[in-house]
Amino acid sequence: MLRAAGSRAIIVAGWAKGEAMKDRRSFLKRGAALVSGATLASRANADPLAGEPWERVYGAGFTKYGQPARHEQIGRHFGQPYGELAPGSGAALSPIEMLDGIITPNPVHFIRSHSGTPDIDPKAHRLYIHGLVDRPLRFSVDALLRYPRITRTYFLECSGNSSRALTPKPAQVPAGAMHGNISCAEWTGFPLRALLEEAGVRPQAKWLLAEGADSAHMSRSVPLEKALDDAMIALYQNGERLRPEQGYPVRLLLPGWEGNMSVKWLRRIKLTDGPTHTKDETSKYTDALPDGRALQFTFEMGVKSVITRPSSTMKLAERGFHEISGIAWSGAGRVRRVEVSTDGGQTWAEAALTGAERPRALVRFRYPWEWSGGPALLQSRATDENGNVQPPRRDWVARYAPDTRFHNNSIVSWGVESDGSVKHVYA
Amino acid sequence: MLRAAGSRAIIVAGWAKGEAMKDRRSFLKRGAALVSGATLASRANADPLAGEPWERVYGAGFTKYGQPARHEQIGRHFGQPYGELAPGSGAALSPIEMLDGIITPNPVHFIRSHSGTPDIDPKAHRLYIHGLVDRPLRFSVDALLRYPRITRTYFLECSGNSSRALTPKPAQVPAGAMHGNISCAEWTGFPLRALLEEAGVRPQAKWLLAEGADSAHMSRSVPLEKALDDAMIALYQNGERLRPEQGYPVRLLLPGWEGNMSVKWLRRIKLTDGPTHTKDETSKYTDALPDGRALQFTFEMGVKSVITRPSSTMKLAERGFHEISGIAWSGAGRVRRVEVSTDGGQTWAEAALTGAERPRALVRFRYPWEWSGGPALLQSRATDENGNVQPPRRDWVARYAPDTRFHNNSIVSWGVESDGSVKHVYA
Repeated sequence: MLRAAGSRAIIVAGWAKGEAMKDRRSFLKRGAALVSGATLASRANADPLAGEPWERVYGAGFTKYGQPARHEQIGRHFGQPYGELAPGSGAALSPIEMLDGIITPNPVHFIRSHSGTPDIDPKAHRLYIHGLVDRPLRFSVDALLRYPRITRTYFLECSGNSSRALTPKPAQVPAGAMHGNISCAEWTGFPLRALLEEAGVRPQAKWLLAEGADSAHMSRSVPLEKALDDAMIALYQNGERLRPEQGYPVRLLLPGWEGNMSVKWLRRIKLTDGPTHTKDETSKYTDALPDGRALQFTFEMGVKSVITRPSSTMKLAERGFHEISGIAWSGAGRVRRVEVSTDGGQTWAEAALTGAERPRALVRFRYPWEWSGGPALLQSRATDENGNVQPPRRDWVARYAPDTRFHNNSIVSWGVESDGSVKHVYA
Repeated sequence: MLRAAGSRAIIVAGWAKGEAMKDRRSFLKRGAALVSGATLASRANADPLAGEPWERVYGAGFTKYGQPARHEQIGRHFGQPYGELAPGSGAALSPIEMLDGIITPNPVHFIRSHSGTPDIDPKAHRLYIHGLVDRPLRFSVDALLRYPRITRTYFLECSGNSSRALTPKPAQVPAGAMHGNISCAEWTGFPLRALLEEAGVRPQAKWLLAEGADSAHMSRSVPLEKALDDAMIALYQNGERLRPEQGYPVRLLLPGWEGNMSVKWLRRIKLTDGPTHTKDETSKYTDALPDGRALQFTFEMGVKSVITRPSSTMKLAERGFHEISGIAWSGAGRVRRVEVSTDGGQTWAEAALTGAERPRALVRFRYPWEWSGGPALLQSRATDENGNVQPPRRDWVARYAPDTRFHNNSIVSWGVESDGSVKHVYA
């Protein structure tokens, strides 16, 4: 206790002698980052180290299961006008504009569900494997928890992500409300291959049907090749057991492919000689072309990126340094490069990447920017290890029929106005 | 809808013809993993694909901020006998025995606090840098949020972790209640170096004092070398802003060092010419030796591992395959190797690692084990890239005075009894 009193006394004396705090100065770091000081509060009055009220009272007790700070209003985007036809039917999007890093916390992982979140009793739930197999099998959840596990970090993206960026006029909503059907988690489970080998896949089997235990029995056809490659039976997400809205007690996980194919609440896998053409893959998740035909089974999610900070509905407080940061990903593998433009695509510069060593995971990109105070047009463009490049919006729009709303991986544009406000623009 | 009805009819017909589900069979995977089938439920009656009640009703609606499944009772360990002297004073430990993978979800990250969690207003909170600097500086939280950021995955371990494994008799509590003062997160913030360079560190400065805004003003001395190396100003944890109990709105992060030095609710950094010898580093966090002397400033956390599954208070349901899995880490850098013994250290075998490319982060290890049904003694032993090896318990105990309770990184032993029950033992 002597120490605390003593050190405070010294500091107060220092201040009394006029060693006043200066405002934070602008600084230049390795030629990259310039931060100006105008956002600082004014000089502290009297004794700046006297302490705040919370430093004079006992703090809160422990919690078994914690919650975010009450000052941070973090939550998923949903409700009108996001097309929630019935409770839990539709999408609840991750607030990507509020997040940083790579991992999406479980409580705000995006949700896409077709008939709400079922209330599954894990003691009663079963997973069946049947169809073109030597041995039809039935697994309790306890049995699935016995398999030797692997841990992998993968993104999941709804095929309909960014469909809201296809409206006639650019919506002025937060980035996550348009592009937040993307999340990334550390998944733990085991290869689907283990179960298929145990059941004995017959030579005629080329596809499988994966079906969920929601009341829509959401189901998709999956080529056997993917099922035997990197498909996972996922049991844990970011360390803890799956959340109900993410498929508790067990989900399929198909890295890099359309999110809905990673069937949640997985109840059966039927081996088949061809695709089943389920309602979910004929009425939805097909991509209409200008000539009236439609692409079906476009499984892989394209290379893509979006700037999350600054982004639409935000406002830059002042001129000077602003870090431009966002997320990038590719269903084809690793992100090799993300370029950033602040002049609407006239010039591009390479951003720094975090996490680029992991295939089919989100990558965080960062680019230091000095805002002059004039209009600017911010864009990002991702390239993956296979050489796929995120397309300009006009190219993407020309490729599909006007009402197509899946697989929009086109470049996103944020316009910065002279007053610092950031608007969603089509460019 | 035709599809769903049709495919169900086919399946039912298949069952009617006698193509009954078989119990899951034991399988051998690449010589490593043997799973037996006795945990399976009995054969389904009548129509096994008829569906459960939750498949016939509409599911739950979306939530802004989700919660775990109600069937999973996940939560931190705290309360008596963990020494909570006053609410929030002491430790709340991560339930490592319930987790898998590497990332610790924010809601169950361990907490060590000295006077509870302060309720800090981020608009009023300030961080000061003063002492032996050219320019004393004061930062609002908004100002800190303007710096160019980095993202890194690091473990945090309380120096007193595993002190409960030093009681005269081995406590029969879950692994997390003894060894759960360890967690791992993806941290986003920026190098402390940026602020120090901006303030201008004077040549006489060799250390700094870091102080929190809790009412205990928890504070520690940090060598300048660490502060200029990998020390971070952390603002985000696993994607979202810091939780209150993890230092909201801003904490220091010293990778690989005693957890309490990563000062939470960081309010000031004072550059000094030597250590301050604060109450927290004299009355606590020193390591008593057998000869009556004590080691002070033993910052780095030792190389360590613990098997989390199976672990104390669990019970193996049956003979056959069980994955042995756990976590390993080292404050000195990367984990190079984790060995597992099932015979009390007579023989060791190397486990598979996930995440070993990251220094000062948790690593997940896995080892396939066939339990014969007899007594077994499970241990794990980690080695880091500097050649440090986790010591046997007897060696560690001999090194310190009997009442020492910090830096216990000794090998943990779980005894499996013939009935499958797993007990904490000293070996």
